[in-house]
Amino acid sequence: MSRVAIIGCGMTSFGQQWDKGLVDLAVAASLRAMQDAGTESRIVDAVYCGNMSSGMFTGQEHISSMIADAAGLRMVPSTRVEAACASGAVALRQAFLAVKSGLHGCVLALGVEKMTDVSSTMSTRILSAASSQDYEASIGATFPGLYAMLARKHMDRYNTKEEQLAMVAVKNHDNALANPYAHLRKKISVDDVMQSQRIADPLKLLDCAPVSDGAAAVIVASEKIAGKADTPVWIEASAQSSDSISLHHREDLTTFKASACAAREAFRQARTGLNEIDCLELHDCFTIAEILALEDLGFAEKGSGGKMVEEGLTHVGGKIPANPSGGLKAKGHPIGASGIAQAIEATWQLRGTAANNTSPSKVLTHNVGGSGATAVVHIFGR
Amino acid sequence: MSRVAIIGCGMTSFGQQWDKGLVDLAVAASLRAMQDAGTESRIVDAVYCGNMSSGMFTGQEHISSMIADAAGLRMVPSTRVEAACASGAVALRQAFLAVKSGLHGCVLALGVEKMTDVSSTMSTRILSAASSQDYEASIGATFPGLYAMLARKHMDRYNTKEEQLAMVAVKNHDNALANPYAHLRKKISVDDVMQSQRIADPLKLLDCAPVSDGAAAVIVASEKIAGKADTPVWIEASAQSSDSISLHHREDLTTFKASACAAREAFRQARTGLNEIDCLELHDCFTIAEILALEDLGFAEKGSGGKMVEEGLTHVGGKIPANPSGGLKAKGHPIGASGIAQAIEATWQLRGTAANNTSPSKVLTHNVGGSGATAVVHIFGR
Repeated sequence: MSRVAIIGCGMTSFGQQWDKGLVDLAVAASLRAMQDAGTESRIVDAVYCGNMSSGMFTGQEHISSMIADAAGLRMVPSTRVEAACASGAVALRQAFLAVKSGLHGCVLALGVEKMTDVSSTMSTRILSAASSQDYEASIGATFPGLYAMLARKHMDRYNTKEEQLAMVAVKNHDNALANPYAHLRKKISVDDVMQSQRIADPLKLLDCAPVSDGAAAVIVASEKIAGKADTPVWIEASAQSSDSISLHHREDLTTFKASACAAREAFRQARTGLNEIDCLELHDCFTIAEILALEDLGFAEKGSGGKMVEEGLTHVGGKIPANPSGGLKAKGHPIGASGIAQAIEATWQLRGTAANNTSPSKVLTHNVGGSGATAVVHIFGR
Repeated sequence: MSRVAIIGCGMTSFGQQWDKGLVDLAVAASLRAMQDAGTESRIVDAVYCGNMSSGMFTGQEHISSMIADAAGLRMVPSTRVEAACASGAVALRQAFLAVKSGLHGCVLALGVEKMTDVSSTMSTRILSAASSQDYEASIGATFPGLYAMLARKHMDRYNTKEEQLAMVAVKNHDNALANPYAHLRKKISVDDVMQSQRIADPLKLLDCAPVSDGAAAVIVASEKIAGKADTPVWIEASAQSSDSISLHHREDLTTFKASACAAREAFRQARTGLNEIDCLELHDCFTIAEILALEDLGFAEKGSGGKMVEEGLTHVGGKIPANPSGGLKAKGHPIGASGIAQAIEATWQLRGTAANNTSPSKVLTHNVGGSGATAVVHIFGR
């Protein structure tokens, strides 16, 4: 079957962008991606936009046609896709499928979220719409609370330490220092994390990804079109899985089964194994999430993710660098944009132009919706 | 390229369903579709859910994984797609592309909306999120107002009569009488429409589709799987287009350019022409919309849509029956479900099991988002 590649990338800075609206951000990223692809924009024949909740954040639904129009792509089919915090990776996956189908040759896949125009109380409430309203949000279990339960269970069962969680944050902040697009470019220490405000015990403020505005976009093209591009990066696998939305319906709170399932499928599609992957972008909305991901994807034995971080294996220069971009934790987490931003970091790593270059041969990205009800894994290669 | 078929259909009644939640409705329709397909549910390997605004209507986003889980499809990739009132047809199109891509063999495409748990003021406000917040909703131009402007312009330019608009409603109510799933199974007369309350002049209450709860689902399968089904209905074309979201950005208010564009592409894909289509399901959210659709799709000369309705050409038994199901106008319009319900009517027509059977050889469906910023056209055949 013919291959599919990323041939262009563009993103906005992540952070508080009070002078820009959702469409402004989406269009800025999209135009940069089209320019980077070096193709004329009129060759783009479909658009997918990952976005979790423009309706609740901004009062505007139906944003896909607005973005296409404002980006100079009026008449082009344009569709919003949503799977909570995994909306970005799901948009990339739809672009991949659309090209694979043969109906489209060159697709703009973007993600965007405008989160800071509402109060932090309101953004917490809106984000909780990605968890079960009936069983979780209604009793006050917001996402920090849900991930705190996962962290507590992991600590109890596997002797994972709060300091190991903190080390994820320290590493990702270190990585973000070099990333001009990152929201939190600030060096922190384990002590800083340990002494930051407790949000939902054992998670503290610096264990949590920030609330950010931002957009990211890639141009996904058929083998025929990509063959003319300078540095195509091939999408070798695009796999997605789902699970119960509520934690109480899971057999085990120390694993995201959807992540493991999507990873298995991704390795099958790419005909590759763990050992061939040498760089990771993981869904670290909270520090415990990066540890769960290392284990669920198979890079750490179950229960040993904290130790792996402590040993420095996931640092840039370590055995398998994780989140050289700074991750959601320090790069920022404009919900719908995060999955696309991961794909951009993968592309830049494989092109050799990333800020923290790790010279990988294959990069795996991992994007999660909610507390694991959606997981998407992509594998990229040169 | 290999073909793609619908092999199973299921829907709930459309109407006020205060005893059922969004997931209940979605699962009921999905289970019926899987049963109708006669395949085991475990062969379903992806889910697409069309839904406009579960977040604003119910406070719950991320519904795709909830629905997959509740329908017995945990772990299966499940994605919500949104393009306002065209969300259903867009979900069908993603299922079509997913099967075409070769990555999926059997996909559940469903649409659902739960609209009646909020006040009618609130539902009007939420629906306005499908129009431009900046240029339309903010000045009080809700959808009846926007479509009223389109109707007024059409009346001015082409001498279309209010009575001709009313005849669309009368026909569609007539058709809905036989449809057990329809929201408004009530015979009405042109006088009834003309004397009903003015909502936004020249549109009256009976020119408007109702606010409904409901869900609809189809099973979309590869040629290999469909070959074993009893009565596969082939998706011969799946085309989508977009336009500016605001009416003031359009060159012409008497046409939806996206509809015309999608139709052109659909005829190209199906390698067929107008004359081979002998049944239509059109997006009649307001009566004027059906007249616009007849013209934009090419079945009536520009400006003569009203006359075509008046002459009875679109009645069941007429030259080209439009909305034998009752259409959005009388069957009901649970936003995300409408595009899938159209595909179900097309399937039933082609199987020969529709309530108002027109024995067609090819059926065209037409689903619109907002006031024409998205349009999707499918062509189905035996």
